[in-house]
Amino acid sequence: MIQHPAFAVDPWAVRERHLHLDVLAQTESVFALSNGHIGLRGNLDEGEPYGEPGTYLNSVYELRPLPYAEAGYGYPESGQTVVNVTNGKLIRLMVDDEPFDVRYGTLHEHERVLDLRAGTLTRRVRWSSPTGAEVRVTSTRLVSFTHRAVAAIHYEVEPVGRSCGVVVQSELVANETLARQVADPRAAAVLESPLVLEENVPAKEGTAIMIHSTRASRLRVAAAMCHDIDGPEGTRVAADGAGDISRVTIATRLEAGQRLRLVKYFSYGWSAKRSRPAMHDQVVAALAAARLVGWKGLLADQRGFLDDFWAGADVEVDGDAEVQQAVRFGLFHLVQAAARLEDRPIAGKGLTGSGYDGHAFWDTEIFVLPVLTYTYPRAAADALSWRRSILPPAQDRATQLGLAGAAFPWRTINGEECSSYWPAGTAAFHVNADIANAVTRYVDATEDTGFERETGLPLLTATARLWCALGHHDAQGRFRIDGVTGPDEYSAVADNNVYTNLMAEENLREAVEVATRHFDLAQTLGITLEEIAGWRDAAAAMYVPYDERLGVHCQSEGFTGHAVWDFDATRPDQYPLLLHFPYFDLYRKQVVKQADLVLAMHLRGDAFTAEEKARNFAYYEAITVRDSSLSACTQAVMAAEVGDLQLAHAYLGEAALMDLEDLERNTVDGIHMASLAGSWIALVCGFGGMRSGQGEICFAPRLPPGITRLAFRLRYRGRLLRVGVTHASTIYRLTSGPPITLTHHGERFLLDGRPVTRPTVKVKAPEAGIHQPPGREPAPRHTR
Amino acid sequence: MIQHPAFAVDPWAVRERHLHLDVLAQTESVFALSNGHIGLRGNLDEGEPYGEPGTYLNSVYELRPLPYAEAGYGYPESGQTVVNVTNGKLIRLMVDDEPFDVRYGTLHEHERVLDLRAGTLTRRVRWSSPTGAEVRVTSTRLVSFTHRAVAAIHYEVEPVGRSCGVVVQSELVANETLARQVADPRAAAVLESPLVLEENVPAKEGTAIMIHSTRASRLRVAAAMCHDIDGPEGTRVAADGAGDISRVTIATRLEAGQRLRLVKYFSYGWSAKRSRPAMHDQVVAALAAARLVGWKGLLADQRGFLDDFWAGADVEVDGDAEVQQAVRFGLFHLVQAAARLEDRPIAGKGLTGSGYDGHAFWDTEIFVLPVLTYTYPRAAADALSWRRSILPPAQDRATQLGLAGAAFPWRTINGEECSSYWPAGTAAFHVNADIANAVTRYVDATEDTGFERETGLPLLTATARLWCALGHHDAQGRFRIDGVTGPDEYSAVADNNVYTNLMAEENLREAVEVATRHFDLAQTLGITLEEIAGWRDAAAAMYVPYDERLGVHCQSEGFTGHAVWDFDATRPDQYPLLLHFPYFDLYRKQVVKQADLVLAMHLRGDAFTAEEKARNFAYYEAITVRDSSLSACTQAVMAAEVGDLQLAHAYLGEAALMDLEDLERNTVDGIHMASLAGSWIALVCGFGGMRSGQGEICFAPRLPPGITRLAFRLRYRGRLLRVGVTHASTIYRLTSGPPITLTHHGERFLLDGRPVTRPTVKVKAPEAGIHQPPGREPAPRHTR
Repeated sequence: MIQHPAFAVDPWAVRERHLHLDVLAQTESVFALSNGHIGLRGNLDEGEPYGEPGTYLNSVYELRPLPYAEAGYGYPESGQTVVNVTNGKLIRLMVDDEPFDVRYGTLHEHERVLDLRAGTLTRRVRWSSPTGAEVRVTSTRLVSFTHRAVAAIHYEVEPVGRSCGVVVQSELVANETLARQVADPRAAAVLESPLVLEENVPAKEGTAIMIHSTRASRLRVAAAMCHDIDGPEGTRVAADGAGDISRVTIATRLEAGQRLRLVKYFSYGWSAKRSRPAMHDQVVAALAAARLVGWKGLLADQRGFLDDFWAGADVEVDGDAEVQQAVRFGLFHLVQAAARLEDRPIAGKGLTGSGYDGHAFWDTEIFVLPVLTYTYPRAAADALSWRRSILPPAQDRATQLGLAGAAFPWRTINGEECSSYWPAGTAAFHVNADIANAVTRYVDATEDTGFERETGLPLLTATARLWCALGHHDAQGRFRIDGVTGPDEYSAVADNNVYTNLMAEENLREAVEVATRHFDLAQTLGITLEEIAGWRDAAAAMYVPYDERLGVHCQSEGFTGHAVWDFDATRPDQYPLLLHFPYFDLYRKQVVKQADLVLAMHLRGDAFTAEEKARNFAYYEAITVRDSSLSACTQAVMAAEVGDLQLAHAYLGEAALMDLEDLERNTVDGIHMASLAGSWIALVCGFGGMRSGQGEICFAPRLPPGITRLAFRLRYRGRLLRVGVTHASTIYRLTSGPPITLTHHGERFLLDGRPVTRPTVKVKAPEAGIHQPPGREPAPRHTR
Repeated sequence: MIQHPAFAVDPWAVRERHLHLDVLAQTESVFALSNGHIGLRGNLDEGEPYGEPGTYLNSVYELRPLPYAEAGYGYPESGQTVVNVTNGKLIRLMVDDEPFDVRYGTLHEHERVLDLRAGTLTRRVRWSSPTGAEVRVTSTRLVSFTHRAVAAIHYEVEPVGRSCGVVVQSELVANETLARQVADPRAAAVLESPLVLEENVPAKEGTAIMIHSTRASRLRVAAAMCHDIDGPEGTRVAADGAGDISRVTIATRLEAGQRLRLVKYFSYGWSAKRSRPAMHDQVVAALAAARLVGWKGLLADQRGFLDDFWAGADVEVDGDAEVQQAVRFGLFHLVQAAARLEDRPIAGKGLTGSGYDGHAFWDTEIFVLPVLTYTYPRAAADALSWRRSILPPAQDRATQLGLAGAAFPWRTINGEECSSYWPAGTAAFHVNADIANAVTRYVDATEDTGFERETGLPLLTATARLWCALGHHDAQGRFRIDGVTGPDEYSAVADNNVYTNLMAEENLREAVEVATRHFDLAQTLGITLEEIAGWRDAAAAMYVPYDERLGVHCQSEGFTGHAVWDFDATRPDQYPLLLHFPYFDLYRKQVVKQADLVLAMHLRGDAFTAEEKARNFAYYEAITVRDSSLSACTQAVMAAEVGDLQLAHAYLGEAALMDLEDLERNTVDGIHMASLAGSWIALVCGFGGMRSGQGEICFAPRLPPGITRLAFRLRYRGRLLRVGVTHASTIYRLTSGPPITLTHHGERFLLDGRPVTRPTVKVKAPEAGIHQPPGREPAPRHTR
């Protein structure tokens, strides 16, 4: 998209200089605003045209039946789909007799800017109606980080040249007509009119309220709006509403030089429990609080919040302006998705679109939470508290499956499994170890003992119990985990997936440690010393299959004996393969959708020698097609580790530009939260070589030719660290917190108030030639 | 069911002595009549009560969408479901003012007899109406083996004691209301009102015709009826009809000693191509032909046909009367399913119910066709001609899957894949080798060179091409077939399933032989010497995994390393396991639904030593739960071969009594054609020890204590053989055809017009203890 001529590269903003309707749907995702509780797609103020209208509240979903032509035991009977709730961002405009619609009349200027430091989306338009009346419209929109329930729009109209009559209609609208989706299995199911009206109070004293509830899931959703209006004398305001629409109408005549300004405050609340009167009062109170702060106050709070965030999160990239922009864009969307989570999930698309039905997956724990853990740790804790809150359904699911502990859902909103295709859903048990990994990482990075006891212990032990029930010691004593699906979705239901086994091993070990450390509390969960010993035994005996003949690890047992996919016979238009070949054929051949064994080498680097990493990386590179957005960043990290820095840079580019360049052609459905997080991972863990755990944080900086300087900030155990890398040297700074021992390319040193400089090591390029399947090479970075 | 007090054991009949509504639905399947073209469930003449009304025409189906919550490439979009066509067997009766309904009034006598030599279902009833009018009703029903399109009912009413008024309404009714099915995935989908009326001509000159077509599949179905009526003077006949009903009404008054007799002839035709007028004429012509022969002629033809059949097919079992009855019952249903096939499939349920949606599966080739091949070979040829006729869609499917040759559907009516769950459908590629096996067997048993060229060659070569595309030579040169599903439905998508690989090997070898033998014709199919060499290479290098540590073959590669199912923790009410445990868990553990490796040992006995067979059998017995009806017969065969004759007898009993005792509690959906065929297989291949191929036919007779004598007939290469086995000796007789060399327990001898007697060898009981999972032992035969 930023290759589109309408877009400019800007280090702290995403700027669209002209409106191009061919990318309207994608820009709605890119320009989405959210605070983790409310999400507003970047729809035009006037509502039309649109790609997909979208207003979301975290965890407001509708149930829908999951159909099966051949049903089976344990198949989920109903799924959850994110609901497009009441649209509060709608502000229609009539100029003289003509509705403002960019498809008619003349659009002289149209600029939209997502400001990554202000936390606002600003739009500037100059438009002539078909009858020649010309106006300038400026709107600035925010979803407040500091007022969880509140969004606001500053909207201004002024005539250009001659005077004109202006009518502004500010609305709340429920049950908008959604766009038809393609038959791609990845696109969200479309739900029509999910909201049942309970209350529609037209504006009294400027405040309008609408309350609906969802038909099947029985969630109550309240929305309210009020306005500060500043227009010339004679400006008239009226309110009406019926059915699913509530409307405030502002009519005025503007002479040249006059303006109509309004600030629209709107607030949301939802609950499965609270009554209609309670919800009514709740949204009205939120409006009152916002109005007290006022537009300027909201703007200032927004910037203050983001200043704090960037102080601990910003990444500077010199030499690659697109990546510089993209990594900040990614961090911005991450904080948007997570800021006001408060025990709710981070969905794969955040609150930017209805893709994947609004479900949360394992990639939150493996890609998103590592970034948050080191930049905005409170949000990581919130996301894991949500996992803690869905332990009961996960325990029920384990029981249903004949297992023990907890079996977390592959995809969900409310905690219940929504995956209707079990080989790529229920069988992907690694999600449980991924949650454990995120818990361990968070506790290591924060020393948050309260969290460890209240959230970490239940999660680690429930997942450890699962592994013990799922695996078994074989005749040779090895602990095997058979018939599961690893991260690679082009394989399924295989024995001893290395990623799964190594992550389960870590999960079991951490459960042993935490349960031993807090044995008092562990006992209340029914944990005995015998059980802990069982976890220790399973971890110690964990089987990791290795192909002696090829000298590489098997992604899963037997994998390297399979036929290699016929890449030469595969046409470029046959990617992604899953849309052109049956799972049957993909599963039985050596072809990898996304990093799996390579991800294991990143997250469990301790389990592989450097030589193994190099051989494995070369082997799996040749068969990995990256039909998933969850791959490039991990390939970047491992390419950097094995010394192919230009390749790592190319993968970084792909991860970072996933949405700004719409690389998978589905940004319309929402942005790829994990891939955006991956740009940070590629930079910090790839080029920064950062690894941490067990109270240690290590770096192994190495830069590709195209990046002249990389600087990043990290929060770790109460410190704020800054690391600045050039090709010559690396400077470590402790911005706050007590002294800490760090590791630079294997050498430990103490960092206190004084900066420490170390030479940036020149890494050796890998000996083996590294290549990808024909046509699947990442685009090289032509940097500026 | 025959354990039900209402049933009697009778060597040549299935006799129900009283009506028990608790087994009404099952008896409708057991008492179903069919000729392979028309199928009538054993519904009561008067239509109600019923378990499931059923009138079927082979290959008349409706299309229905197959839903997927998560769709995937290559998933079939629509399925086929057998349609309950126009019911012609309906004869309602009014006695004075009361409709004859067994649920009201008093049922003094009610007997139904399925006569296995006459080919008729006779019903004798004595009933008093609630107002006390008593009648005797006798009906005899047949579906003609000699007149493919015709069924007929002889119906007689006489008053008992005092006179009464009688009204008989003989009807054609379409779109009957079907019974609601349980949510068991095995039960057929219910389709409501699938027939669209095209023509309803009430009886003119005694003949009524109704023509419908199916809504989506666009098949035209014509039904017609006419009547011979014999009643006292004053009997009046009228006809009317509208919508989906056509009715002939016969009203009379019967004095004591008087009777009303009618013969109802009804005929069917269907076509995807022929016009309405053509179909009209076709069914009228069929009626005319039937009426010309008359009721007695139809009865005589029916018996003549069956006399011929039994002469080449009968099996005598002394010492186990239930099995004696059951094996004849099974053979009767087999000939019913196959007699007038004429290039149409034999469904899993024949035409006896709507179970499995009326689909045909691999079990036709592996269980049903072997029996027909040696008893009624023309039907086996017909069934394989159907496979030949669906080569085009099978080739299209192979192309869609990225393969070569033909990929036959897992389940189908019209040749297109209907399986919506690919791990247990599309991935079960062994169906292709099963078809090749049936072709090879048929050609071996008949020396039918015309068939070999026209049907055998295209089938063998298309399937050989599939295997070459599906497998690959690995680095050690072994030919591997990865990621497929074998017969055992509690495993799926595994590498190198021994059954599949051995059957594919045979398929490839036979393709080499037949293509070489008919190279002229093979060339017209584009087959080259190079391609044939490729088949030979693949067969020669076929990989058969073996577990050296355990000394047994692996069902599939890696299988014996999996955890063994926890049988001790499994309650009796948790069988069948698939209704109580997820596929996920079943697939990853050592638990076998149905003979898989054991079936390979039967069909590819040459690939195993006697010691391997004994060890493998003991190993797999301990983990086989027989949740499929396709298991007991194969276990019987191999139990007999390894010397456990009592166990073999027990399995024989289970296979034979599957429907007469409703062992799987789903006989309501139709009878289990393959299991019934399996009773013949268990007797002839188990206790007779019969194996054949490559022009050789061998026997290894051995009898369990409970069977004192076994005698069977076989057709082989133009001969009719009779084999009679007692514990002491075996007598071979050549009833017709030229002399032939046979093998008795490894000893070859020439059989000509004179009987040859050989001692029946006492087999050694197996050394290793053979046991089944707890609670899954077959019921021992307490023989009479």
